[in-house]
Amino acid sequence: MYRSHSCGQLRASDVNTEVTLAGWVQKTRDKGFMIWVDLRDRYGITQLIFDEQRTPAEVVEKAKTLGREFVIQVKGTVIERESKNANIPTGDIEILVNELQVLNEAIVPPFTIEDETDGGEDIRMKYRYLDIRRNPVKNSLMFRHQVAMKVRNYLSNDGFVEVETPYLIKSTPEGARDFVVPSRMNEGEFYALPQSPQTFKQLLMVGGMDKYFQIVKCFRDEDLRADRQPEFTQIDCEMAFVEQEDILTIFEGLTRHLLKDIKGVEIGGFPRMTFDEAMKTYGNDKPDIRFGMKFGELNTVAQHKDFKVFNEAELVVGIAVPGGASYTRKEIDKLIDWVKRPQIGALGMVYVKCNEDGSYKSSVDKFYDQEDLAKWAEVTGATPGDLICVLSGQTNKVRAQLSALRMELAERLGLRNPEEFAPLWVVDFPLLEWDEDTERYHAMHHPFTSPKPEDIPLLDTKPGEVRANAYDLVLNGNEIGGGSIRIHDKETQALMFDHLGFTPEEAKAQFGFLMDAFQYGAPPHGGIAFGFDRLVAILGGQETIRDFIAFPKNNSGRDVMIDAPATIDQEQLKELNIQLDL
Amino acid sequence: MYRSHSCGQLRASDVNTEVTLAGWVQKTRDKGFMIWVDLRDRYGITQLIFDEQRTPAEVVEKAKTLGREFVIQVKGTVIERESKNANIPTGDIEILVNELQVLNEAIVPPFTIEDETDGGEDIRMKYRYLDIRRNPVKNSLMFRHQVAMKVRNYLSNDGFVEVETPYLIKSTPEGARDFVVPSRMNEGEFYALPQSPQTFKQLLMVGGMDKYFQIVKCFRDEDLRADRQPEFTQIDCEMAFVEQEDILTIFEGLTRHLLKDIKGVEIGGFPRMTFDEAMKTYGNDKPDIRFGMKFGELNTVAQHKDFKVFNEAELVVGIAVPGGASYTRKEIDKLIDWVKRPQIGALGMVYVKCNEDGSYKSSVDKFYDQEDLAKWAEVTGATPGDLICVLSGQTNKVRAQLSALRMELAERLGLRNPEEFAPLWVVDFPLLEWDEDTERYHAMHHPFTSPKPEDIPLLDTKPGEVRANAYDLVLNGNEIGGGSIRIHDKETQALMFDHLGFTPEEAKAQFGFLMDAFQYGAPPHGGIAFGFDRLVAILGGQETIRDFIAFPKNNSGRDVMIDAPATIDQEQLKELNIQLDL
Repeated sequence: MYRSHSCGQLRASDVNTEVTLAGWVQKTRDKGFMIWVDLRDRYGITQLIFDEQRTPAEVVEKAKTLGREFVIQVKGTVIERESKNANIPTGDIEILVNELQVLNEAIVPPFTIEDETDGGEDIRMKYRYLDIRRNPVKNSLMFRHQVAMKVRNYLSNDGFVEVETPYLIKSTPEGARDFVVPSRMNEGEFYALPQSPQTFKQLLMVGGMDKYFQIVKCFRDEDLRADRQPEFTQIDCEMAFVEQEDILTIFEGLTRHLLKDIKGVEIGGFPRMTFDEAMKTYGNDKPDIRFGMKFGELNTVAQHKDFKVFNEAELVVGIAVPGGASYTRKEIDKLIDWVKRPQIGALGMVYVKCNEDGSYKSSVDKFYDQEDLAKWAEVTGATPGDLICVLSGQTNKVRAQLSALRMELAERLGLRNPEEFAPLWVVDFPLLEWDEDTERYHAMHHPFTSPKPEDIPLLDTKPGEVRANAYDLVLNGNEIGGGSIRIHDKETQALMFDHLGFTPEEAKAQFGFLMDAFQYGAPPHGGIAFGFDRLVAILGGQETIRDFIAFPKNNSGRDVMIDAPATIDQEQLKELNIQLDL
Repeated sequence: MYRSHSCGQLRASDVNTEVTLAGWVQKTRDKGFMIWVDLRDRYGITQLIFDEQRTPAEVVEKAKTLGREFVIQVKGTVIERESKNANIPTGDIEILVNELQVLNEAIVPPFTIEDETDGGEDIRMKYRYLDIRRNPVKNSLMFRHQVAMKVRNYLSNDGFVEVETPYLIKSTPEGARDFVVPSRMNEGEFYALPQSPQTFKQLLMVGGMDKYFQIVKCFRDEDLRADRQPEFTQIDCEMAFVEQEDILTIFEGLTRHLLKDIKGVEIGGFPRMTFDEAMKTYGNDKPDIRFGMKFGELNTVAQHKDFKVFNEAELVVGIAVPGGASYTRKEIDKLIDWVKRPQIGALGMVYVKCNEDGSYKSSVDKFYDQEDLAKWAEVTGATPGDLICVLSGQTNKVRAQLSALRMELAERLGLRNPEEFAPLWVVDFPLLEWDEDTERYHAMHHPFTSPKPEDIPLLDTKPGEVRANAYDLVLNGNEIGGGSIRIHDKETQALMFDHLGFTPEEAKAQFGFLMDAFQYGAPPHGGIAFGFDRLVAILGGQETIRDFIAFPKNNSGRDVMIDAPATIDQEQLKELNIQLDL
């Protein structure tokens, strides 16, 4: 037995107990005649004392050689501490050591193993095994485990069955880029790693499995934006004999359970909003509704004067920034610079100060009088003391720009409280979206999403207006889940592939197995998938997912700790019947 | 709402309730004026009745068009059945239907959806989604889920943390062949899919995570023997500050819990046996100890006469087959043929009938008298009525042959009761094994396994005799788990790589990150991994794993349902900087 207790366990009631502890040396204080060591393990820190008067001399000598992160084992007696430390649970006691064994020495770590470390992101990732010793990372990983357990137990108790679907599947041209795996046994052929278990979970529904879930790794070979990982984890769910309402109810229940159980937050029915409404009101299909600053569309009240910029714009839209009227000219200029940055791309910004005295001062006073500006204030909901920020241009672009500005201002104003939770269902997504590059329609969710029956006639005439039985669950401005009711008959599925530009032969080659399956009695079905990394991060009160992943990859898809990917030898390539083509 | 109740739910107490059910048509019986339909879903079967007297005429007409596996929804009233069916839980009632909707039609399935189907393995795999509708497969998948939940809850309650380790890692030359994944972003480089999370779980121990587990997919690109899958699932576990005894105790606890909770079987302390003893007594490192037929080594009692075959053999060894003395000459000849098959490879078999009268009749009476044969009987534990089967030759080969014979005879004698459970720890495995092909020593478990400290001096002189701190958990003749105490210091790890034929440079290139990690305070640690597919199959009372995997691959590594692997297009290859080399 390496230890009788953990380093987070002993209390005043244990005084006089003989104990054995093991762990890492967090720090040592050597006063000559007395040495204190903070001993750390996963469970906490316990203070050790080596005292010339009471500890064997050779043990004291050995204690003097201990360095940070040495792994040691000690035997000793629990004694009451003279100066107690109320900050840690073991702060009332210390261990008077009489035996010490060094289990492993340690060279000096490249960064401090403290909650606030001096190590930057890169070095922490290279030595991730040291980073994990730090409480913030360790606790995030343990928190992730707890969330996973709660999800599994909740769904399992509700009759869901976790079924493992395969990782070595088939590459499909639709959607993001696949990672592929050359097959040695099937020459010239490749497996693909799943972007999601989509078709398998649908086949489980055809198989009568009825209520499926899986917490599962998925893979996308995309150019990595910040905070995206080539491998990520999903809570993947599917049900048969359900309509959209059933899915929303059940997974609202799961989310409510997690918020209650983990955060102690009670939330009633989640609000719902259509995609169109979300875009119109927040410029975004995943609005953060913890705060207001709703969009006010100003076309009717701003396009009647000689201001050419507005008159030529497809959309003129503004938001009221609480308290913004007090911004200095310099602050406002900086805000204008901010929206003009290439990442945002606005050409400029019009503003209106809503003074406390009820008057308005705008950057376009040349064109608009007080009465005009009062209308703007009405539309944007601005009250005295606010600043109205107005952008104009092509609808989609200007909405994205103003949405970015809204989020930025909310951040600056401290309106994005990580301990406040505002879930929202966004429903009625478009079925298709136009892709400028390929000049054709793509499935907005995926090609298995069912159109709303009443919109099917529009498929030939106005494909962009066809709504899908698709929904997203949004939490604090993040899409944490998305899903749809699926197509479950061969004809509609064939129609859908046709509209996505597949020839019947291509559709059959890629998805023949699914359309075949639909012929043998497929039940109506639908589902949802949650981004687990993101969900855990948000529940953990953070916006970045990286510290909730044990061994994340960097933005080039590299694991800098093990240095992967790496070259493989010629023999291995030969066995796989491939060669490099650089 | 598609249904108010499931098809397994309604009872006599529900009579007169108005219900809505949905499911698949299992079968129909049309008596003209009355039609009965068995409606099936995941939860059971409920009988529907369409009665000319009581059901609207158009509904009866529609019911006549229903075929097997049609998906339907019905509304009706629960009524008491005239002729009750005691075989199913819903057998007391039926539903008098008044509304019927066909949700999806079905063409005739390629095999019957019955517990005993007429479909062979190949066709069942191609239409696995139909196969899953059958109770044996459906129940196996649901059973697997239950076992996984029990494992997770048990370990989690015991303080273990499930940590997800990466799937895109680095290829290593040691061990089985890796599946690799070309990296698009890192030209000419490849990820590998993990054969196990071995190094990551060790790094988690270095990171202080202390008690780790994960139910995780692993990958091996091996030529597939029967009942092996290229992707398989492991319960992967690791602990820090433990010795072998701790690991054995904890995972014996897990296994005992599963046997108790799932099978209702109470088992005390698991017996232990050294590798040497297992090989000597059962010719096998995973002995099935549900039955006897232990090996008796006969060298000393059989090598003193003129029987050249025995005299020249390295090992002469026999087993006593209960009741075998009554075998006819023809039956014995068939047994001899069986051991001479190429898969077994024995050159012949000597036998001794132990007659009920205490006399012996052997195939080598020319060389051995009754007194000699009495000694054989003593050594093999044979009693009157038994048949002693004796093989001879090179030790390893003859042990393997006699072990195969022992298992075959146990099978024939019905001694392998799937509802009886006999776990066993096999300990003290050799650290290294000689590989004839490469003419060097390989790690028997893996290169991170620690040698027994007292055996380290043998590394230079008799490497084959060095014992490892390695152990397997065997259940009913199957290895269900295996693990070891790991090396946790850089020097021993470097020594080990040296003995495995790595140059220091190769060791650094492949495992530098691990040896680096050992410098920063690695705790003593060890672990175990269970083959989850196998464990579930055995607990489910079966020997083959395939029906406990939702979508298994065939022996060529193909998924015949989705037809993967498959070719990918030239563009995709180009992006990955590889070309085919066929």
